[in-house]
Amino acid sequence: MSGESVYVVGAGMARFGKFPAEVTLEKMAVSASREALVDAGCRVRDIDGVYFGTVLGGSVAGQRTGAQLGLTGQPVTNLENACSSGATAIRDAWLSVKAGLHDVVLAIGAEKMTDRISGGILADASDLDAALGMIMASNHGMSARRYMHDYGATRAQIAAVAVKNHAHSVHNPYAQYQHPVTLEQVLDARPIAEPLGLLDCSPISDGAAAIVIASEAGLARLGVTGRPPRILGVGLVSGTIHDGARSVNEEDISRRGGEEAWRISGVSPTDIDFVEMHDCFTIAEIVRMEGLGLIPRGEGGMWTEQGHTSIGGKLPVNPSGGLLSRGHPVGATGVAQACELTWQLRGTAGARQVEEARTALAYCKGGTVAGTDGASVSTLVMQA
Amino acid sequence: MSGESVYVVGAGMARFGKFPAEVTLEKMAVSASREALVDAGCRVRDIDGVYFGTVLGGSVAGQRTGAQLGLTGQPVTNLENACSSGATAIRDAWLSVKAGLHDVVLAIGAEKMTDRISGGILADASDLDAALGMIMASNHGMSARRYMHDYGATRAQIAAVAVKNHAHSVHNPYAQYQHPVTLEQVLDARPIAEPLGLLDCSPISDGAAAIVIASEAGLARLGVTGRPPRILGVGLVSGTIHDGARSVNEEDISRRGGEEAWRISGVSPTDIDFVEMHDCFTIAEIVRMEGLGLIPRGEGGMWTEQGHTSIGGKLPVNPSGGLLSRGHPVGATGVAQACELTWQLRGTAGARQVEEARTALAYCKGGTVAGTDGASVSTLVMQA
Repeated sequence: MSGESVYVVGAGMARFGKFPAEVTLEKMAVSASREALVDAGCRVRDIDGVYFGTVLGGSVAGQRTGAQLGLTGQPVTNLENACSSGATAIRDAWLSVKAGLHDVVLAIGAEKMTDRISGGILADASDLDAALGMIMASNHGMSARRYMHDYGATRAQIAAVAVKNHAHSVHNPYAQYQHPVTLEQVLDARPIAEPLGLLDCSPISDGAAAIVIASEAGLARLGVTGRPPRILGVGLVSGTIHDGARSVNEEDISRRGGEEAWRISGVSPTDIDFVEMHDCFTIAEIVRMEGLGLIPRGEGGMWTEQGHTSIGGKLPVNPSGGLLSRGHPVGATGVAQACELTWQLRGTAGARQVEEARTALAYCKGGTVAGTDGASVSTLVMQA
Repeated sequence: MSGESVYVVGAGMARFGKFPAEVTLEKMAVSASREALVDAGCRVRDIDGVYFGTVLGGSVAGQRTGAQLGLTGQPVTNLENACSSGATAIRDAWLSVKAGLHDVVLAIGAEKMTDRISGGILADASDLDAALGMIMASNHGMSARRYMHDYGATRAQIAAVAVKNHAHSVHNPYAQYQHPVTLEQVLDARPIAEPLGLLDCSPISDGAAAIVIASEAGLARLGVTGRPPRILGVGLVSGTIHDGARSVNEEDISRRGGEEAWRISGVSPTDIDFVEMHDCFTIAEIVRMEGLGLIPRGEGGMWTEQGHTSIGGKLPVNPSGGLLSRGHPVGATGVAQACELTWQLRGTAGARQVEEARTALAYCKGGTVAGTDGASVSTLVMQA
């Protein structure tokens, strides 16, 4: 794909967590945006457009956030693709620059979940599978059982994903959880959908994240010197009604999401130095990495147990802590992943830095649990 | 703005109206989409991407519609900008082609309101102005009073907008209302927010609309010969917190929306042969046409009364019947406007055809009533 080069020149977050009602979606979004703007050396009037991802934020969340930021009439677009809403906001922000319409664009993801949701979330009120009991957790519980059966993986290998991601986010000041957990704590946690327990599940979270992206002309406008990380492409695919017919772990949608990423960005899977992966459940990290073709099928549990996906391993996954430990305010997640890619590719990720990180992938999945008619997967490729 | 030329090669609608619960949002969206695809000579597998505008449709309405259409995994993006959601879907669809990412894109707008809403709608659950009584109707009632006071306009001139738009949609087979109303009927209708009565207000509606857009390569893929109408540009602006401070009719956001349209499309206001205007209330058509600079300030009531904005007049407004009479399923409205532009610019609008229609504007406004922090205006310019 030709067109403008697109750079990420600023990244900011509002810490993920569970906050009282007065910490509104807009306040978190403004806080994250200001941090990203300061990071980019960008004034509010330098922004050409805003793309805002949220699920629960209502119909004009981006406009209200823009007003509180002091926006002076620039275009604001709200996007919604379930748990990949933030990633989709980045995709359309990227397209607006690629198309030559905008030179400096703010992409925001935000969600205020704790005062709206208790217990698990459904993909959609009209998701019949979910209404009949096939909610997220039960689907991933079945996925884990099937994975253990098919590949002889152990429960401990799956639990090791939570241990790893919690260990990573000890060093992430924006993470909802900044303490390590032991394998025993994961195995002994309250059962949710066996074999998965509470620590195999990503939490309900509040939070926001923002990035500033720019064309070459945008770099000049902002006075950016040097070469910031670039967005090479953002893939997006939807589910098909034949997905997952043979096995819940087949992840056809992940395979296709990966193919879109490689096609649009021009990189190949072997170029990827680390991944921010949509680990809404421990087992999901494993089957999605395998679906993308980044880990051989059936080996993801073993890779995790042996440390290959830890920082310092051969393919680090979720140096940020991922959804499991950074938290999962749904609309914010995709943008938070992009923030992590930006910091890692700049080499400024501190104690959680992935060495020699040059090319990275962020993967988000939203929608119905079975990956069928209501699902979407987005794949963002960035390069230093 | 350079980049790909973007053509509208197909348009389709599901009739607007009030339908029982089994006529779901997805069914209407599929019906409109199939009509647009047939019109374009486009198979489902020819589609590169889908952009879907809806407010009440939930987080994955586009994916569910795509699955029912038989989509095989293509990217689907849901957009939400209150009453300009459908127009915003067209904007991002247009950008995806301008950017060179897609060659054939389906843009859909759909809403199922009648089983969700009784009485008037609020811009947003957290819109404080609305919660305190400044709902849509009361704002537009004040607007009408102020307009009559400032310019000596009469109640009958404002009511003439409803008479005109109902007269137009007698000839629109997709319109919710296909019968004329008399001036007396408008003046004698049940009061809603004085001086406005029931027939000054757009209805609660169900419905869907879809267009297929294509690049030059897309025309070749579909085997389109000749030159279909082109999208010259889609402007989008947000409100600012200073909007409307001096008068509710100042419509700074409309002025800026127009300026965006002229800047991006390269046409000037005098090029516009007819307008599809967001007439959520009779008075809104008048003040927005004036805000755009297409009618001199204070003359819109007189223009309407004298027939200048009727089909056959010097600047026809809402040949489709507009929101007042075609109906207003909020997410569908912007796409329905684009359908009307397409049919008119092709010269196939039948008894409601605007003669020598070559260049046209569609205007949508969404969000908070006062046009301040939660508002957005989109402006689509198309040319034969």
